[in-house]
Amino acid sequence: MTPEEFRTAAHALVDWIADHRTRVPELPVQARTKPGEIAAALPATAPTGPEPFDAVLADLERLVVPGVTQTQHPHFYGWFPSNASLASVLGDIASSGLGALGITWQSAPALTEVEQVVTEWLRVETGLDDGWHGAIHDTASTACLVAMLAARERVTDYGETRGGLQAEPAPLVVYTSPHAHSSVAKAALLAGFGADNLRQVEVDPVTYAMRPEALAAAMAADVAAGRRPAAVVAAVGTTGTTAIDPVRDIASVARDFGAWVHVDAAMAGSAMLLPELRPTLFDGVGLADSISWNPHKWLGTILDCALLYVRDVEHLVRVMSTNPSYLRSAADGSVVQYKDWGIPLGRRFRALKLWFHLRLDGLDAIRERLRRDLANATWLAEQVAAEPGWRVLAPVPLQTVCLRHEPPGTVDDAGQVLDGAALDAHTLAWAAAVNDSGRAFVTPALLDGRWMVRVSIGAEATGREHVEWLWALLREVTTQA
Amino acid sequence: MTPEEFRTAAHALVDWIADHRTRVPELPVQARTKPGEIAAALPATAPTGPEPFDAVLADLERLVVPGVTQTQHPHFYGWFPSNASLASVLGDIASSGLGALGITWQSAPALTEVEQVVTEWLRVETGLDDGWHGAIHDTASTACLVAMLAARERVTDYGETRGGLQAEPAPLVVYTSPHAHSSVAKAALLAGFGADNLRQVEVDPVTYAMRPEALAAAMAADVAAGRRPAAVVAAVGTTGTTAIDPVRDIASVARDFGAWVHVDAAMAGSAMLLPELRPTLFDGVGLADSISWNPHKWLGTILDCALLYVRDVEHLVRVMSTNPSYLRSAADGSVVQYKDWGIPLGRRFRALKLWFHLRLDGLDAIRERLRRDLANATWLAEQVAAEPGWRVLAPVPLQTVCLRHEPPGTVDDAGQVLDGAALDAHTLAWAAAVNDSGRAFVTPALLDGRWMVRVSIGAEATGREHVEWLWALLREVTTQA
Repeated sequence: MTPEEFRTAAHALVDWIADHRTRVPELPVQARTKPGEIAAALPATAPTGPEPFDAVLADLERLVVPGVTQTQHPHFYGWFPSNASLASVLGDIASSGLGALGITWQSAPALTEVEQVVTEWLRVETGLDDGWHGAIHDTASTACLVAMLAARERVTDYGETRGGLQAEPAPLVVYTSPHAHSSVAKAALLAGFGADNLRQVEVDPVTYAMRPEALAAAMAADVAAGRRPAAVVAAVGTTGTTAIDPVRDIASVARDFGAWVHVDAAMAGSAMLLPELRPTLFDGVGLADSISWNPHKWLGTILDCALLYVRDVEHLVRVMSTNPSYLRSAADGSVVQYKDWGIPLGRRFRALKLWFHLRLDGLDAIRERLRRDLANATWLAEQVAAEPGWRVLAPVPLQTVCLRHEPPGTVDDAGQVLDGAALDAHTLAWAAAVNDSGRAFVTPALLDGRWMVRVSIGAEATGREHVEWLWALLREVTTQA
Repeated sequence: MTPEEFRTAAHALVDWIADHRTRVPELPVQARTKPGEIAAALPATAPTGPEPFDAVLADLERLVVPGVTQTQHPHFYGWFPSNASLASVLGDIASSGLGALGITWQSAPALTEVEQVVTEWLRVETGLDDGWHGAIHDTASTACLVAMLAARERVTDYGETRGGLQAEPAPLVVYTSPHAHSSVAKAALLAGFGADNLRQVEVDPVTYAMRPEALAAAMAADVAAGRRPAAVVAAVGTTGTTAIDPVRDIASVARDFGAWVHVDAAMAGSAMLLPELRPTLFDGVGLADSISWNPHKWLGTILDCALLYVRDVEHLVRVMSTNPSYLRSAADGSVVQYKDWGIPLGRRFRALKLWFHLRLDGLDAIRERLRRDLANATWLAEQVAAEPGWRVLAPVPLQTVCLRHEPPGTVDDAGQVLDGAALDAHTLAWAAAVNDSGRAFVTPALLDGRWMVRVSIGAEATGREHVEWLWALLREVTTQA
């Protein structure tokens, strides 16, 4: 394809994108595609000759759009805000158009240095001190794996250069909350620690936050049994209820036992931009060894854009570095080589989407939107708490409300569940009714063994009027269910 | 930013991209930026208010473009072809514009099913049998790590569910070629095997291909010493010389010892699309357990787009899967969940760029281009071999020519190096002269302890006339150096 052919097609495509984003509010939120339906609609073999762009664009409209759950919809209250701000989309398009290759500083100095600048901008704006150094990864899952590898190599004094994890004399143990994201356990297992050496530390029954004294007890018990605490992952904003593990106390315990502290703030990290929340929600994060958060969630820099900040870059590079002859350049030693900060060698120019996003939207507007979402969640929680037959099941420190509608006979006045099966069936039925309607999308999840519904507020398009409408819909649908 | 503001900015941006791609041949190939220069040109703090799009676009032109080594340049002969075909750029733009979230099938059925279809298309077209199942990862580095984890868990019978790598009774060993990509050793170390348990198997001194009998001897010695062969990584197309490890014989040895076989064909895999090359270069790849190759290299699907095919999906999923309540849906069990095929949970809609690329360019044209590049490499190797004072240092099975200019007195008639220091200094000097000129870009690399120059042909824009011009340039610059 020539640049001129590209030009014609790209103009049509960006018009399509603008039109698409305009009509998102009219689309069903949840994809209604049946399993296998899209695959079956595509040819079984690859095209040999070139197809016209119009045919591809038509398939994008006809096959792909109905097969996407619309996370940019104002009534998307699912998993977590997965915003793709149009400012960041422009940056992503610029990255694609440049076609830069990030393998070393020399392959694209701008890719490295813009990433240094934007991660530094966000370090300052999130109130992290200048001992932190950031890089962009694809996801918090990968960032957590990198943190677990860094932790493993610190406690083994670079065992990877010798017999690896296989040669360690005493088992290394990782600690986290049972409410931590599934990627934490996955990272610990992939790093080789083993499920036997992964501890789920007790949480507070009301706040669902990790209990530091339980962490201390677990670490002490492991040490007494000849094992070595290697790392603790604190969740600031758990996935289920956005519970806030107390990082300051956790870090204090971890320091006593020599364990690495990783803070997983994948969704909540955006709120570190709000100074008023730092003393409560993010107290002590400066004492951790690593922290990750995803601008590709609530902040709105299109996926994939996850930040991992570490304090000891030299250590991370020692764990991750390679230096084959064909990647050496005269600039080595005086520049950052992000290939040595993570797993992949080749990297996209992801900093552009963050750079465009921050510049075109500006932090004032972003902060205003985050505060809007927090206020909307508070408002919804207040409505739910005040409504007979409804219950808010967890504190609402951020933008997620965990709620349940409790039909007569399922729960007593003290909140004790009388008929859990009926309650679960009711919850799953009305959540499915909401989602299947296409009018809004919420996420059922288990809490204390019972189904509840998470309303995760924070789509860029979601204003107070949308949340008010949702609350009316929830009352309507639970009456009918 | 509203869709209408986006529309206006995006039209300007895609015009800029088309203009940029048109003038790439006029730009210096190698970025000339000094370390820190770009970072210093950017503000120290993040913008609070919104900036106009024109200002950002101007910085893209003024700061970013000079800071990018132009891998789309017709005279880019560096590391490996890193093509960003404009057809795939359109697909990448579509992905950005959709803003889809890939976490489960339900979050974006089209993201999963288009990925199933395009990976299946390429399975068929590369001649892999229907026992293979593919997914898109960011890079071959990550794919190799996933393969090492799968290997580790197979030989330990899912040790991750018990004491992990820490509880294994005998050390597990990984085997590869000393010419394998740096990411192979990195993957083995990150997976916890340890450097003591990573064997570099002897290669043939002429072809630089792994010697299967040396592999068998190494595995037998390890078994005799109480260790267990876990995996062997065969390189089809090593990074230095594109050497072809003999996969059929390697797989036969590995089978005897119960070791996983991973084929790293990151660059060369595109050539599997050419049936005439399969019997020689890819003989026996069907006997491996996993194979990865990167459409984002020679094929030209813009970074990042790496394929990993495995035979035993059930095994891979068992190693990688998580199933938290908030990700469950009614479709579970009847659909593919790519989150369980790799490390990250959240995934971009990367299949779109492959889909657009294959449809808009068509495989016939892609195959024609690959054959053009192979012929150009053969032509250059013939010129070099026929020219007094020049030497081709390794076989040229693909599109990379490893060459050296040997001034009088540095090498004798039999090819023995007489003055290695002078030869190395000369090689590095003329390679730097080429690269610093901005007129072409080549990669110096070590081979048998001496510097040589890799000319990696395969940029989309590189025709025979460019390679002829390069050969004239090399003769000119070595005369002056």
